[in-house]
Amino acid sequence: MKIAEFEVETWMTDHENHCRYNLTETCVSSLSLNDLQKYVQEDISKTIMSMTLDYGPIVGSSRLKQAILSLYETGTVENITIAHGAINANELVMISLLEPGDHIVSLFPSYQQMYDFPKSLGCEVSLIHLSEEKKWMPTIEDFKQCMRNNTKMICLNSPNNPTGTTLPLSFMKELITLAKDFDCYILCDEIYRGVNTITQTMSPSFSDYYEKAIVTQSLSKVFSFPGLRLGWIKGSKEVVHTIDMRRDYHIISSGPMDDYLACLVLENKEHIIKRSLYICDESKKILKSWLEQEHLVSCVIPDEGTVCFLKYEVDMPSIEFCEKLQAETGIFFVPGSAFGVENHLRFGLTHLNEIKEGLPLFSQWLRQFDK
Amino acid sequence: MKIAEFEVETWMTDHENHCRYNLTETCVSSLSLNDLQKYVQEDISKTIMSMTLDYGPIVGSSRLKQAILSLYETGTVENITIAHGAINANELVMISLLEPGDHIVSLFPSYQQMYDFPKSLGCEVSLIHLSEEKKWMPTIEDFKQCMRNNTKMICLNSPNNPTGTTLPLSFMKELITLAKDFDCYILCDEIYRGVNTITQTMSPSFSDYYEKAIVTQSLSKVFSFPGLRLGWIKGSKEVVHTIDMRRDYHIISSGPMDDYLACLVLENKEHIIKRSLYICDESKKILKSWLEQEHLVSCVIPDEGTVCFLKYEVDMPSIEFCEKLQAETGIFFVPGSAFGVENHLRFGLTHLNEIKEGLPLFSQWLRQFDK
Repeated sequence: MKIAEFEVETWMTDHENHCRYNLTETCVSSLSLNDLQKYVQEDISKTIMSMTLDYGPIVGSSRLKQAILSLYETGTVENITIAHGAINANELVMISLLEPGDHIVSLFPSYQQMYDFPKSLGCEVSLIHLSEEKKWMPTIEDFKQCMRNNTKMICLNSPNNPTGTTLPLSFMKELITLAKDFDCYILCDEIYRGVNTITQTMSPSFSDYYEKAIVTQSLSKVFSFPGLRLGWIKGSKEVVHTIDMRRDYHIISSGPMDDYLACLVLENKEHIIKRSLYICDESKKILKSWLEQEHLVSCVIPDEGTVCFLKYEVDMPSIEFCEKLQAETGIFFVPGSAFGVENHLRFGLTHLNEIKEGLPLFSQWLRQFDK
Repeated sequence: MKIAEFEVETWMTDHENHCRYNLTETCVSSLSLNDLQKYVQEDISKTIMSMTLDYGPIVGSSRLKQAILSLYETGTVENITIAHGAINANELVMISLLEPGDHIVSLFPSYQQMYDFPKSLGCEVSLIHLSEEKKWMPTIEDFKQCMRNNTKMICLNSPNNPTGTTLPLSFMKELITLAKDFDCYILCDEIYRGVNTITQTMSPSFSDYYEKAIVTQSLSKVFSFPGLRLGWIKGSKEVVHTIDMRRDYHIISSGPMDDYLACLVLENKEHIIKRSLYICDESKKILKSWLEQEHLVSCVIPDEGTVCFLKYEVDMPSIEFCEKLQAETGIFFVPGSAFGVENHLRFGLTHLNEIKEGLPLFSQWLRQFDK
């Protein structure tokens, strides 16, 4: 099945291992099991060394599902299933529910999987183009104009990658009203949920407000454990059952070790999220004060998530810009072109020391473009 | 995308946790990391506790790919990519290379993913029906009759699940000649490769004999580590590149911990395979002598793999048979109907003690059907 190259992922794979200042990373500085041990009474090492590594709980343990439910207002274990990261969670939702000829509505820019994966399944896709002038926010009118009788799913990513924009609750409710009129699913990839530096709480989840909402998340971003490759899906009991049936063709299980470790991460989430909030908050402060003195770069700084989208006033395509910058300074960005938007760079609020050292160096490098 | 229920997997999920004698398990008794530590000099626990759990090597580490290459006669690291188990490896191959309208040829019975996954992608599927009288072996004539101008892929599972049949090298070579005439891929799920109790060596891999062969395998069966969820694909450099591009939409990476542990398993494979050979060999001896005295059951015992397919001479559908047997004795089988073949049971050669105790109990239970 033909599909467009996943530009942000291939760029990351090709460039991330050769950089000195990673200013584009989306995961809050990853932790180790020794870091996790500090919050946990039981001996992690002893448990995982003695565990029989059979397939483990096929659709995830009840303990893990209970831990996941603590992130939401509503739901039971029957509303949750486990996946190999949020990427696989999104895949499972779309391949289970979409058919060739279905129409879906998505945002642009956003995570490419949300529109190019359904396209590869033979779906028709309408894209709502976001603009920086409107703080990267869509309007309900934008959605109304896209909806059709065969619209099966609205595919979102909130907080959005790369812009960081989070849809406010009032907007979510209006969108749900519209979706109900078309008996349409809302899939929201909520992988960046969890570090709102203004409210200090998690923003609302679509799954708590609409029966036909399906949300995905993982341990990768605010939980700092991307290496566990553990994501999940929350949806209606019927949707979860359909996905569990499909899932046997894709992953079988997550394995008992990752299931157990994910329980420990989520059961100790207050420590981990507190650290992530601190890191993202400090990063935003440094970014804000840097933006005040850097006339060639601007940005809509979001309330939540771990990324935002820098705009640069230099007449150079973003791929060329990023490659030159990385070659000459070791500073690593994902170019806006990987999201279909030129003259932008995805900025990650996750690596505090690299941001502290990297931003002044970036400014120094930018001086060659002053007129 | 509609797909048939994956019958063997849903049966396993629903029944495997409530049994006393698992006589159907396909993985040679799973091991723990403490078991692995016996073969390894370095301190596994120390390494995994201190490892930063970021995404890790995106397409798998070179060390892991080198370890995988030791299972084949040919190839370089560019011929290998990593997946979440063999199930995900098969998915990645098929979703990357097949298009709606393509024709594929597969065997029946065999692993259901091999024919129902491509069908869900819109492919046409021709099935070659295997018969017990011919020792579950297809003929080249069977394949010739199925081939069409739009045949894109021959999808096999050798050694086969559930019959255990392994295609001999002479047959493989004839099939390759036929595939070349149609410029057709051969996908062979070789997950059961590795425990040939006759030759004591691994049977040949399609990937060592044909440029357009793609093979998959994992740590689940003969390597006794299904819980690591680590599989791989070996194919031409071009195919691996296409799959790596697609892979970003499905799993991103396997995570650094599973990558590292998989290296240790494969670097110490001689110990693990020796144990698996012993277990399967002993199991076959017990099964053979049991079959000699059990007149209601017969079986084609295969040379390789960890499963075979028992035929029972009782007039009862296999689902009813298995449920009654499990309820009354705790003996667990997958019914033949999960593979589309009635009056059969999938037998696993993997749990030696359960086989020793379970088979006499099974005979005792069967006496009610004597005429």
